[in-house]
Amino acid sequence: MKESLKPTTLTLHQTHQTLADLDSIYTTLTTSLKESSLHVFPEMYLTGYPLKDVILQKSFILAYENLIERINDWSLKVDNSVEWTALIGGIKYELDHDHKIKKIENVVYELKPKQKLTPIYSKRLLPNYDIFDEQKYFTAGEHNCFYQYNDSIFGILICEDMWASNFHKMDPCEIMFQETIKKDLTLSGIINLSASPFNFSKKISRHKRASTISHFFKCPFFYVNLVAGEDEVLFDGQSFCLSGDKIICELKAFQSDQKSISLNEIKTNFNLDVQLNHTNTWEQLFTPRLQYSNSTIRLQSLSDEECQEILNALIFGLQEYAQKSKFKKFLIALSGGMDSALVLAITHLALRPEQEVEAIYMPSAHSSQLSTQLCEKMCKRLNLKLQYLPIKFLHSAIKNTFENTFTENFSGLTDENVQSRLRGMLLYTRSNQTGAMVINTSNKSELAVGYSTQYGDSVGAISLLGDLYKTEVYALSNYINKKFNQLIPEEIISRGPSAELRENQLDQDSLPAYEILDPILEGILSYGLCKTDLIQNGFDTKDVEKVLQLYSRSEYKRAQFCPIIKLKSKSFGFGYRISINKNNQYLNF
Amino acid sequence: MKESLKPTTLTLHQTHQTLADLDSIYTTLTTSLKESSLHVFPEMYLTGYPLKDVILQKSFILAYENLIERINDWSLKVDNSVEWTALIGGIKYELDHDHKIKKIENVVYELKPKQKLTPIYSKRLLPNYDIFDEQKYFTAGEHNCFYQYNDSIFGILICEDMWASNFHKMDPCEIMFQETIKKDLTLSGIINLSASPFNFSKKISRHKRASTISHFFKCPFFYVNLVAGEDEVLFDGQSFCLSGDKIICELKAFQSDQKSISLNEIKTNFNLDVQLNHTNTWEQLFTPRLQYSNSTIRLQSLSDEECQEILNALIFGLQEYAQKSKFKKFLIALSGGMDSALVLAITHLALRPEQEVEAIYMPSAHSSQLSTQLCEKMCKRLNLKLQYLPIKFLHSAIKNTFENTFTENFSGLTDENVQSRLRGMLLYTRSNQTGAMVINTSNKSELAVGYSTQYGDSVGAISLLGDLYKTEVYALSNYINKKFNQLIPEEIISRGPSAELRENQLDQDSLPAYEILDPILEGILSYGLCKTDLIQNGFDTKDVEKVLQLYSRSEYKRAQFCPIIKLKSKSFGFGYRISINKNNQYLNF
Repeated sequence: MKESLKPTTLTLHQTHQTLADLDSIYTTLTTSLKESSLHVFPEMYLTGYPLKDVILQKSFILAYENLIERINDWSLKVDNSVEWTALIGGIKYELDHDHKIKKIENVVYELKPKQKLTPIYSKRLLPNYDIFDEQKYFTAGEHNCFYQYNDSIFGILICEDMWASNFHKMDPCEIMFQETIKKDLTLSGIINLSASPFNFSKKISRHKRASTISHFFKCPFFYVNLVAGEDEVLFDGQSFCLSGDKIICELKAFQSDQKSISLNEIKTNFNLDVQLNHTNTWEQLFTPRLQYSNSTIRLQSLSDEECQEILNALIFGLQEYAQKSKFKKFLIALSGGMDSALVLAITHLALRPEQEVEAIYMPSAHSSQLSTQLCEKMCKRLNLKLQYLPIKFLHSAIKNTFENTFTENFSGLTDENVQSRLRGMLLYTRSNQTGAMVINTSNKSELAVGYSTQYGDSVGAISLLGDLYKTEVYALSNYINKKFNQLIPEEIISRGPSAELRENQLDQDSLPAYEILDPILEGILSYGLCKTDLIQNGFDTKDVEKVLQLYSRSEYKRAQFCPIIKLKSKSFGFGYRISINKNNQYLNF
Repeated sequence: MKESLKPTTLTLHQTHQTLADLDSIYTTLTTSLKESSLHVFPEMYLTGYPLKDVILQKSFILAYENLIERINDWSLKVDNSVEWTALIGGIKYELDHDHKIKKIENVVYELKPKQKLTPIYSKRLLPNYDIFDEQKYFTAGEHNCFYQYNDSIFGILICEDMWASNFHKMDPCEIMFQETIKKDLTLSGIINLSASPFNFSKKISRHKRASTISHFFKCPFFYVNLVAGEDEVLFDGQSFCLSGDKIICELKAFQSDQKSISLNEIKTNFNLDVQLNHTNTWEQLFTPRLQYSNSTIRLQSLSDEECQEILNALIFGLQEYAQKSKFKKFLIALSGGMDSALVLAITHLALRPEQEVEAIYMPSAHSSQLSTQLCEKMCKRLNLKLQYLPIKFLHSAIKNTFENTFTENFSGLTDENVQSRLRGMLLYTRSNQTGAMVINTSNKSELAVGYSTQYGDSVGAISLLGDLYKTEVYALSNYINKKFNQLIPEEIISRGPSAELRENQLDQDSLPAYEILDPILEGILSYGLCKTDLIQNGFDTKDVEKVLQLYSRSEYKRAQFCPIIKLKSKSFGFGYRISINKNNQYLNF
C-alpha cells in the first residue's frame, strides 16, 4: 500500500440551527470552510430539520434555490489556496416548470472550492414512525455511496440508514458491505450525517449501534448530529467518532461544537465476528410501544446522570422556544405543589442575564395556608417577589353572575374547574400585559388521565413536565435539591399532592397512588400492554380498569394541549396519534 | 359465449361506522348477508378508518382477532341455503409470538357461507399526504386481483388505487389492464372499496375518474364508500355505480345506504380511445397546494348546491361528534356578529328532538345596543331564550385585582383579550354545569391571521366554520336565509364585522377587506402561491406582506385549536403541518 499523500482529517460541524434560517446557514457554512480537511455537516444542514410542509411551499423552494445559488457563487469566487472539501446535508428538488414538485430527496452534497454543490448520496431509509413523516415528503435513494477523499474511501449514510431493522425491507449497511466485498474496497470510515431527535439515554444506543457497524466494517464511525429545539423536538448534538469499542471523541450536548480528527491517529482492534444484529432494532430502541413484554413492569427510577441529562434538555428546550419566539420574560403560576415548584426551579436555573421570571400565586378559598407559606419560601430562596392575585372575590363574583342569569349556582366539578380557568385567564392577562411566555406546569401522569382543566391549568406556550410522570417529577426535584442547595422547599416535595380545588382534596382520592398509576401508564403508552398483560403483571384489576377508562376518555384534552418538550421515545404530542372519538371497548382485552 | 348460469347482482353496503366499534361491525355484517349477491363493503369496514395508532395497540389487535374469530364461527354455522358472497375491507396483521407486529396490510377479504374470511387483495397505493399516514402503518400489496364470481370476473381496487398520478411510482389500473390483455381477460366490472374523506364537490372528481377508468376497461365501475365523522374528517358515502358516461345508481350522502345492481341491466357504449390520463392527478384534485397557477386568483363563490352540500356536511359532522362523545346539549356564545349567528343557525337546523341548544350573550362595555337587539331577534326567530351573562362587572373586577397586585392597570390588546377569555371561561363553566358541548365560532380567515384570542373566542369542542373563509360564511348565511325563511336577521349579515373588544372597533381596522384577504389566504394555503405570485396576480404588496406576517406569526394559536370539520382538500388541522418556531424570511420570496 502506498503512503497517504496528505494526512487525512475529518472535521465534524455540530451546528446549532433554526428551521429555515437560510441566512445563518449561509454565513455559518461559508465561514467554517477554511482548513484543509473533510468537513462534515449534519443531515439537512442547508434547511434545518424537520421542515414538515414548509418543504412544499413555493416561497421556500425559491428561497432555497437562492441559498444554493449564493453558496455556488461564493464557492466559485473563494480563494482556493487551501483545498477544503465539505459534505453537507441538504435536500434536492426535482421540479417541473413553474416549480411544481416532482420529487424531493434527502441528500448529501459535496462542496469544494471552485465547484458547485454536487449531490453524491440520497438517503435510503426514510423513517415514518412516531414524529417522523419522511415518506410524506421524500423519495428514497437506491444506491450506496463510497466517497473518495484523498486516498481514503468513506461509506456515507444519512441518519436512519444506520438503524435498519427487521421492520425495514433492506439494510443500507448490509448492502454497502456486500458492495465493498464485491469491489474489494477497504473503507477508511463510515460517515453518518444525522438529524437525530433527543431521548434521554439515547446516546448509549447510538454508541452501541455505531460500534457494531464499526466492528462490522472494521473502520471508524463518524457521527454528526445537529443542535436545535424545534417546538417539541430537541436535537442534542452529541456527535462523536468511535472505532470498534473505543470512543475517539465526543462533542458537546445541546451546544454547537466542532472537532477535527486525524485518521492516522485512530488505532483500534476490531472484533472479527461481529454481525449486524437486527434484533437491536429501532422499534426496540426508539419505539418501545411495539414491544410487548411479560416481565414485571416497574418505572425505572431516574439516576443522577439521567436527571442531569433531563434537566439540561428542559433548559435547552425552554430557551430554544423562548429565543425563537423572542420572549425575554417567563411567567409561572405557583400553587404550592410539586409541579409548579419544579417548573419554577428549572426556569430559574435556565435564566440568562437579560431574562426574568415572574411567579404568580392565585389562592382561592380552598388554598391552604401551607401552600401560601411554601410559595413564599420558594420565592425567597430564588430571590423572587411572589405576586399575589387572589381569586376568591372573582370566584364569588362569577358565582353571583351565574345565580343571576341561570337562577342556579354551581358546585362540584364545575366549581373546581372555574377556579382553574379563572387562573388560566388571569395568567394570560398578565402574560399579555408584560409580554411574558407562560410555562405550562402539567405532568405526564395528569395528561394521561385527564386530571387537569382544559383552558385552566393546562394552558401555556410550552410544557416542561408533560413527558415526565409524577414519580419522575419527584425524582427530578430531589436531584435538583441535592445539586442546587435545596432550591425547592423540602415540604413541597414531602406533602401529599392536591389540586386544592375543594376542601381537603388529595389526588389520591380520584387516582391510584402514583407509584401504581405511573407504571400502568408507561405499560399502556410505551410498551403497548393490554389490560390482561397489566393484570398478569400484578396490578389490581380495578386500578387498571380505572386508568384505562380515564386515559381513553381524555383524548379531547390532549388534542388541544400545548407542545411538550419530548424527552422519551413515546410522548404525547405530534408523534402520538389517537382519535378523540372511537369506541373504547377494545381496551377491555 | 355461454349464458350466465345465475343473474349476477352486486350489493353495495354503504355503512355508517364508529371507529373500532367491533360489536356493531359484527352485527351489521352478519345481518346484512342474506341475499344471493356479491355483497361489497367499504375499505377497512372491519375496523373503521382511520385507526391511526390504535392499529398498533395490542388490545386492539386482540379485540380484532376476536372479531375475526366470531365472524368465522358465524360463517361456519350459518345456513347456506342462500349462497351469498361478500367482499369486505379489513386489515391483515402479520404478527410474531406475543403479538409483536411484523407487517400490516390494508386488504379485501372474501367471505362465503361455511368458509372463513380469506384475504384476496392488498391495497397497492398507500396515500401518505395531507391527513393520510398510510405508509406509517401499512405495507403495500404487489399483485392485481381478478376476482371471479359466478362467471364474471371483477378487477378489485382499494380507494387510492384508482387515483394514481405521476407522483406515484406506478398505477394499479395500468398494471391491471396490462394483465387483462396478457391473459385475455374480459372484466365484468371494477370494484373499488373506499374510505374516502369528504371535500365539497369531491363527488364530481370521483365520478370523472371512475368514468375514465370505466371507459378504459370497457366495463362498469362500482364504488363503495363509508359514512362516518371521525373527529375532523367526514366520510360522505355517496357510493355509486357508473358505466362509461352513464351513472347507473347513486347512494345517499351522509347516511348509511344499500343498493343492489343487476349486471345484466347495465348497458353502455364505451369510448374506444380513452386513456388513463395522469394529468388529472390527486395532487390537482385533492392537494392543490402543490399547484402553482399564474392565473388571477378569485375565491370562487359558492353555488346554492355547494352551500347545501356544506350545510349537510356541517350538520352531519356536528352530530357525529355529539353522538360519539355522548352530548345531548349544545352551547354557543352569540356576539351579535355573523359567525356565531351562522353557527347557531346550523346547530338549530341540526337539532334532533332529544337535543337542545343554549345561546349565551355575554356583553361587555363595548358591546353595542345593536348587538343586543340582533341576538334577541335571532333567538326569537329560533324560539330560543337568550341567556344574558354580562361581563362588565367581572371585567372591572379583574382590572381592580390587577391594579391591587401589580399597581398598574391594563389596556389595549390585553384589555381586549381579557374580555374574550372571560367569555371563554364563563362559557365552559356553563358547559360544565349543564353537560353541554361548546361549539366554536371561529372562521378560517380569522384562524389564518390569528385574529382571535387563545383560550378566548377560540375555545370549543369542535369548529364548524374553521374551514370556511369569512366571505364563504356570508355566502352560506345568505343561502340559509333564502332556504330557511330568514333564520338569521338580515342586519347581522349586512353590518360590518367587529370583535367589539374596544370602542368602534372594526375588523377592517386591522385586516385587509375580506374580499381581498380571503383570496390571498387561499392562494397561500391551497395553491402554494408565494409573495411574488400574489403581487403578480394584482394584490397590493402591503396587503400581501401584512397577511403573510400575520399568518406566519399565528401558528402557535392554530397548534392548540380544536378539531375543525374538514370541508376542503387543504384545511387547518391534522393534515396541516407547519412548525410554530421557524425563520419566516423565506416568505419574502
